[in-house]
Amino acid sequence: MAVNLNDLRELAYQNLSSSALDYYRSGSRDERTLARNEQAWSEIELWPRVMVDVSKRTLETTVLGQRIDAPILVAPTAFHGLAHADAELGTARAARGTVMCLSTLSNTAVERVVATVGGPVWFQLYVYKDRGAARALVERAEAAGCSALVLTVDAPVLGVRERDVRNRFTLPKHLSMPNALPDADTLPEVDDSGLGTWFAQLLDESLSWNDLNWLASITSLPIVVKGVVRHDDARRAQDHGARAIVVSNHGGRQLDGSVPTAVALPHVVDATDLEVYVDGGIRRGHDVLRALALGARAVLVGRPVLWGLAANGAAGARRALDILRGELDEAMALSGCASVEDVGDWLIRP
Amino acid sequence: MAVNLNDLRELAYQNLSSSALDYYRSGSRDERTLARNEQAWSEIELWPRVMVDVSKRTLETTVLGQRIDAPILVAPTAFHGLAHADAELGTARAARGTVMCLSTLSNTAVERVVATVGGPVWFQLYVYKDRGAARALVERAEAAGCSALVLTVDAPVLGVRERDVRNRFTLPKHLSMPNALPDADTLPEVDDSGLGTWFAQLLDESLSWNDLNWLASITSLPIVVKGVVRHDDARRAQDHGARAIVVSNHGGRQLDGSVPTAVALPHVVDATDLEVYVDGGIRRGHDVLRALALGARAVLVGRPVLWGLAANGAAGARRALDILRGELDEAMALSGCASVEDVGDWLIRP
Amino acid sequence: MAVNLNDLRELAYQNLSSSALDYYRSGSRDERTLARNEQAWSEIELWPRVMVDVSKRTLETTVLGQRIDAPILVAPTAFHGLAHADAELGTARAARGTVMCLSTLSNTAVERVVATVGGPVWFQLYVYKDRGAARALVERAEAAGCSALVLTVDAPVLGVRERDVRNRFTLPKHLSMPNALPDADTLPEVDDSGLGTWFAQLLDESLSWNDLNWLASITSLPIVVKGVVRHDDARRAQDHGARAIVVSNHGGRQLDGSVPTAVALPHVVDATDLEVYVDGGIRRGHDVLRALALGARAVLVGRPVLWGLAANGAAGARRALDILRGELDEAMALSGCASVEDVGDWLIRP
Amino acid sequence: MAVNLNDLRELAYQNLSSSALDYYRSGSRDERTLARNEQAWSEIELWPRVMVDVSKRTLETTVLGQRIDAPILVAPTAFHGLAHADAELGTARAARGTVMCLSTLSNTAVERVVATVGGPVWFQLYVYKDRGAARALVERAEAAGCSALVLTVDAPVLGVRERDVRNRFTLPKHLSMPNALPDADTLPEVDDSGLGTWFAQLLDESLSWNDLNWLASITSLPIVVKGVVRHDDARRAQDHGARAIVVSNHGGRQLDGSVPTAVALPHVVDATDLEVYVDGGIRRGHDVLRALALGARAVLVGRPVLWGLAANGAAGARRALDILRGELDEAMALSGCASVEDVGDWLIRP
Repeated sequence: MAVNLNDLRELAYQNLSSSALDYYRSGSRDERTLARNEQAWSEIELWPRVMVDVSKRTLETTVLGQRIDAPILVAPTAFHGLAHADAELGTARAARGTVMCLSTLSNTAVERVVATVGGPVWFQLYVYKDRGAARALVERAEAAGCSALVLTVDAPVLGVRERDVRNRFTLPKHLSMPNALPDADTLPEVDDSGLGTWFAQLLDESLSWNDLNWLASITSLPIVVKGVVRHDDARRAQDHGARAIVVSNHGGRQLDGSVPTAVALPHVVDATDLEVYVDGGIRRGHDVLRALALGARAVLVGRPVLWGLAANGAAGARRALDILRGELDEAMALSGCASVEDVGDWLIRP
Repeated sequence: MAVNLNDLRELAYQNLSSSALDYYRSGSRDERTLARNEQAWSEIELWPRVMVDVSKRTLETTVLGQRIDAPILVAPTAFHGLAHADAELGTARAARGTVMCLSTLSNTAVERVVATVGGPVWFQLYVYKDRGAARALVERAEAAGCSALVLTVDAPVLGVRERDVRNRFTLPKHLSMPNALPDADTLPEVDDSGLGTWFAQLLDESLSWNDLNWLASITSLPIVVKGVVRHDDARRAQDHGARAIVVSNHGGRQLDGSVPTAVALPHVVDATDLEVYVDGGIRRGHDVLRALALGARAVLVGRPVLWGLAANGAAGARRALDILRGELDEAMALSGCASVEDVGDWLIRP
Repeated sequence: MAVNLNDLRELAYQNLSSSALDYYRSGSRDERTLARNEQAWSEIELWPRVMVDVSKRTLETTVLGQRIDAPILVAPTAFHGLAHADAELGTARAARGTVMCLSTLSNTAVERVVATVGGPVWFQLYVYKDRGAARALVERAEAAGCSALVLTVDAPVLGVRERDVRNRFTLPKHLSMPNALPDADTLPEVDDSGLGTWFAQLLDESLSWNDLNWLASITSLPIVVKGVVRHDDARRAQDHGARAIVVSNHGGRQLDGSVPTAVALPHVVDATDLEVYVDGGIRRGHDVLRALALGARAVLVGRPVLWGLAANGAAGARRALDILRGELDEAMALSGCASVEDVGDWLIRP
Repeated sequence: MAVNLNDLRELAYQNLSSSALDYYRSGSRDERTLARNEQAWSEIELWPRVMVDVSKRTLETTVLGQRIDAPILVAPTAFHGLAHADAELGTARAARGTVMCLSTLSNTAVERVVATVGGPVWFQLYVYKDRGAARALVERAEAAGCSALVLTVDAPVLGVRERDVRNRFTLPKHLSMPNALPDADTLPEVDDSGLGTWFAQLLDESLSWNDLNWLASITSLPIVVKGVVRHDDARRAQDHGARAIVVSNHGGRQLDGSVPTAVALPHVVDATDLEVYVDGGIRRGHDVLRALALGARAVLVGRPVLWGLAANGAAGARRALDILRGELDEAMALSGCASVEDVGDWLIRP
């Protein structure tokens, strides 16, 4: 059985096509931010407290008022059908007990995912140039029963993942994007990344903060803004109606050279009263603990869930989450924290 | 003959079973703290004094009033029977001239060790959930003639050493834990680390500072608190009756990501009037000198003694200690220090 | 097709003679500055803004009042004939839309290059000991239609590139230096770098700031001073009549150990009101963005253009520039910058 | 022909016995200071001045009033007979134009060396426990015509070079130490470093600052104190009559972990009015320039001269010095320095 997330990744590497593997693993350009994300967490040294009664521990917390069993959410990632035949339904079953963020670019319709998961689903949104279509998608997600929108703000264009360009990445014939517009629910076959081309054709490069007000006006769902690294942008998100922020650099897949999220996180936390989540490079429960100590309310994990799904379907994806929860429990016990409320920045200071 | 501790380690690697070797060598999880411990010492640069009469040198010092021949103690480590048939009796013979800390998890009864060593033995204590059993163990150690208790405070649960999980680590049939409860004096065979399971079943996860007062109330022995890295915990240890503190992260085997002890040490020294010792990553007498310069009264060494024991029994363990003492003598002479009292923080400042 | 500049470099490595390759790739002595140049850019972390309308983007800017399609100029580099039969004419065709700096040490006469490029050519100047000859060369460049002089100031002697010494570097028979003096338009064959010997024989080691006034007095062209890393030298350049400055360490080919240009750049920017350009180690459009954020008006790229020229002539050289422009466009979009005026030092600060 | 010192080292590695090679190359213990010495120079970044007339350059300077052709002295090193049959006489011939420091542990008598070199020889002194013998040696050096004494102060005991211990290092039969006491002019054959044993038997571990006054009282020669890294020791050296100081950690051969000399140098320079020299890890003329910029009056080089001597006798040793002088000349020209007086700390500051 997989002992850690590296084990799951190794298993996934054996199961995935090289094109799918490259799509999942890649960062943009030199993959510097991809590497720095992981490194930055590991460089944060912990100063544990001892002799604290940790015999009764809980990882429970809430995000946007929703109780979850640990501060670990499933990040929105595209194309789970590349990992396993169960695609997003497998992930949904694995996600029970926490929030699943479903990508606009899923291979499974949002309605089927919500029906399967039996728990809270947050819908990740890319905004079309065609605002009518954008509005229709928002309404569809709300009607399906999603409980929040996660607006991705760091992708006016797609960061170039060179592996995908070389592979001329596209979706295999049996997979589509049922949340997308019916006449654009597959990726084109081009001498480039098919996803990059799809982005450039359909998504709105003009999105700005006022559009956040527009979005809030067409939905009753709370809006989570994902992709912020700057304190001033955090403030703007709050001012324009966001209910929460995800500090993210898109897993190192957009602006290469962008600051690692572990470095950006405290700046965003200091700038806002909103709930702040973080993703990017979380590979150990110990990294979750570091994120909490820096002021995050929860983390999102993307690739590790995909490695689990590719390794062994829903059970594998659940194993990924269980590993992280187990490690977080261990790290909290060894830091003198019986609950996430006990974690503070004292843990990363002498 | 072994010139340095690396030589002894290489010899030990040839003699040990892979499971025992993994048990000794491993740190928890990514083994980051394990690696950082050694690195942190080596990064401390020395600013030696010259033209000091060092023709008459001594390494002698005292710990808790006990005179020892050098500020180097034998750290408590478990299961010396994995290294050599003489087990803790071999180590005890090697330890003459200094303090041997004997683990609760030894393969030799405390009474036999004390009888053999002919010198001071400090008993390392893990506290059972069953406080009656805990008390009985304390009384046994005191009756056997131990001269101090070393309370381990950084292990409410066992940090996961993944090598042990993969190896399903347990004790071979011919070894037991004669200091442990008679009905739990072996490790279980489970699909996990047997030691981790034993810990979770028997040891008290609720231990807190008030229990230190309780412990002091049931013994006349001085109590050394082992496993502190924070200044506030150092203060609490003092306030609750500890007589000395060991700055330790359990050799990188508990909270992975914990600060290296060389970094934590001065914070603890500044916070307390108690004697402060340190362990973790000491691989040269030069590291002992650095620890003294940072304010430690003495160091504890664990793995090097085990490498020596595995390489050549009692003679090998003694060689490990002799190597360190020889290197410390050399480093002191070359720093202008004729005795440990001459060492100060001037040695690590321009 | 080459996705990035590394691809072009790999292609070039297959086409070039080992001597030519060594001449292009080498830095001086230990090649430390060569390596540090690239590294220093990549270490500058970006703090992108999100939710900015970047649907209408332009890379256009001006240098010395000349409109160019992106802030990326072709640096002056010697001996393009080593890379491709089209030599500097190939580069000139590739450079359309921007400024081409032509080296004194070109294998093509300045008149032919200016006639071919159809765009602005800046003439890079080495000053002969023989001031009459120097003046003649300046007048020739001006007469040919060059629109600026780029005076190299970091090469009173040639930094020793040890690869060239070992290769006894010289030009193949079919190549000459038609901008050079007729009786010194080839490199000597010596037991050393032929170029180093040529330099020592002909160029003026006594050049000083007053000579800049002299140079300004004999030409109507604006003078760009190339090779400054110090704030006080930037100030002197301005005081003595320079119109712009290139922060440069000659691509790591002159003083080994010299500060990387990414580190020097802000010091020069702070010291002067002139336009400041920078070169050295720019390998991604993202590095161009970093240079702009540090206050550069534009960058110059040398080796990448040569890799492109060696890989595929004019088309390859153009591909190098197109790759950089494409990456800069991507990086600007992902940083919330619709034009180069939007870039500021906020992008490299939390 | 050797282009740089690495070339000479490679040649030497082919000519030397493994025991002699190990003796020359080794540092003490983990050889950390050995490695750090070189690294620390290379990390000092240079901020060159441009547009300075450097057409008339000189490297000349003085040490203790003695004019030398460049600020590069031959450091005292032992046993040149291991490198070449000409031993110290070869080095002496190579050293013309600068100062040769001759070790107490030379394989050639001081009288023959002085007669050969025709230039200034400084005699490096180890002080015997037998002060009568020590005095006799000082008088002998003075009578031979040495012009200064270099008192080594960082070696009350010999730092352990583990390679020598493993090799049971001793001198081959045909080599002796004619400057040493007649009854101790060879190294013993022991199960350890023969040199370490010789040191422990004969040299004075009690040497202190008052002995510097004693030394000054028995000689008219100026005394250079070699082996200081601390500002307070520099002050003490001055107060007790030293005429100059060598910042040195004995080439990383004494206290391993000692600060690299490039880091210690400015602290010593700030503390004293004496001439300050430095050695350790100088491998390029560029490092000499860095040392001058940090305030050193000159550097000493040890191993590179030995590599040259082993590679090609006197000519090789001279080549080592010529390489360094050539590189220094290049680096000065490229930094805008026509003489060593022009070098200042501005060169290592923005």
